[in-house]
Amino acid sequence: MIKLFYASGTCSLASHIALEDAGADYSITRISFANDEQRKPEYLAINPKGRAPALVTDKGVLTETPAILAFIAQSFPQARLAPLDDPFRFAEVQAFNSYLCSTLHVAHAHRMRGNRWADDPAAIAAMQRKAPESVTSCYQLIEGNILKQPWVMGEMYTICYPYLFTMAQWLEQDGVDPARFPKVMDHRRRMSERPAVQKVIAEELA
Amino acid sequence: MIKLFYASGTCSLASHIALEDAGADYSITRISFANDEQRKPEYLAINPKGRAPALVTDKGVLTETPAILAFIAQSFPQARLAPLDDPFRFAEVQAFNSYLCSTLHVAHAHRMRGNRWADDPAAIAAMQRKAPESVTSCYQLIEGNILKQPWVMGEMYTICYPYLFTMAQWLEQDGVDPARFPKVMDHRRRMSERPAVQKVIAEELA
Repeated sequence: MIKLFYASGTCSLASHIALEDAGADYSITRISFANDEQRKPEYLAINPKGRAPALVTDKGVLTETPAILAFIAQSFPQARLAPLDDPFRFAEVQAFNSYLCSTLHVAHAHRMRGNRWADDPAAIAAMQRKAPESVTSCYQLIEGNILKQPWVMGEMYTICYPYLFTMAQWLEQDGVDPARFPKVMDHRRRMSERPAVQKVIAEELA
Repeated sequence: MIKLFYASGTCSLASHIALEDAGADYSITRISFANDEQRKPEYLAINPKGRAPALVTDKGVLTETPAILAFIAQSFPQARLAPLDDPFRFAEVQAFNSYLCSTLHVAHAHRMRGNRWADDPAAIAAMQRKAPESVTSCYQLIEGNILKQPWVMGEMYTICYPYLFTMAQWLEQDGVDPARFPKVMDHRRRMSERPAVQKVIAEELA
């Protein structure tokens, strides 16, 4: 059985929703960042990166949200979570997820995790000040150049949506004005109404 | 025919090598960052992100190195550039590439592109000072926990290697001590000896 190590309020929510969407047989284990459990030897033995998520499968451990999402889509093809038979369309899905992990998530992380990239408290404060602007510019690209409707890629529901939904949970805290991004907000609302998403969020809050 | 927009000294080198490895019929077009060509309307019409690489295919444009690399591997299966028939092994390849784009490349970018995440010159200088430490910690994980030999994933040559090779080109400039990472350096040397890599680098320098 697949086992997901997750942390509340982190990008692991995307993998959790995708497992539910896939109809996978899985269990979840919470890693408390508040208690620094991600840096304890027991967890580092599973994921030496000391981050969440980590997906334990019968073949080994996977990390990195885009890779986990594609793995879930490919492992449960009947759930139709990605255009698996079309390399170009599959690459569009992957490009979107890659942008979220390498650009949007990174812009967001400068609000809370500036100590990854500078030691000086004044520099960390300067990063916090700019986060609203850099996160907003990511949403401008997503809203203006990428998002189709009703879903990111049009009619087909894909592994992009739990990931965008997860990032968009942080939009207000990141200092972004939701009124500027009606497609992103509509996407977030429609995702939040899905029973699978409600079940997963309830599980993580339990 | 596939057309790659690249910029010298950037991560587009990875996609260029992969196209050559795949035996693809492709052409290349240089985008001069020195002349700010990535922000000109002609290029933004192709890639609104204003970054390199962009891959123009007969179905549309792809961006984001991990997505382009997986697209090339899936589009030229005879080149055997990824374990396409095994979702877990494919996900391992993708997890590696995802780590490079979202963590190693981001750590590196704080040396030269700090203005993405802060406006204050002192904060940008603080990011530059920490880049050697944060890039080094990425290589510690790669060297200690991920790299198998002779290649990243063992015997099989995959789309991870042109990407790691590309990042490792910047290792000394990033202030990382090469002597600490013999596996990474051996990987870089063996990649640099491959005729496909030599051809691609000569083309980019021409």
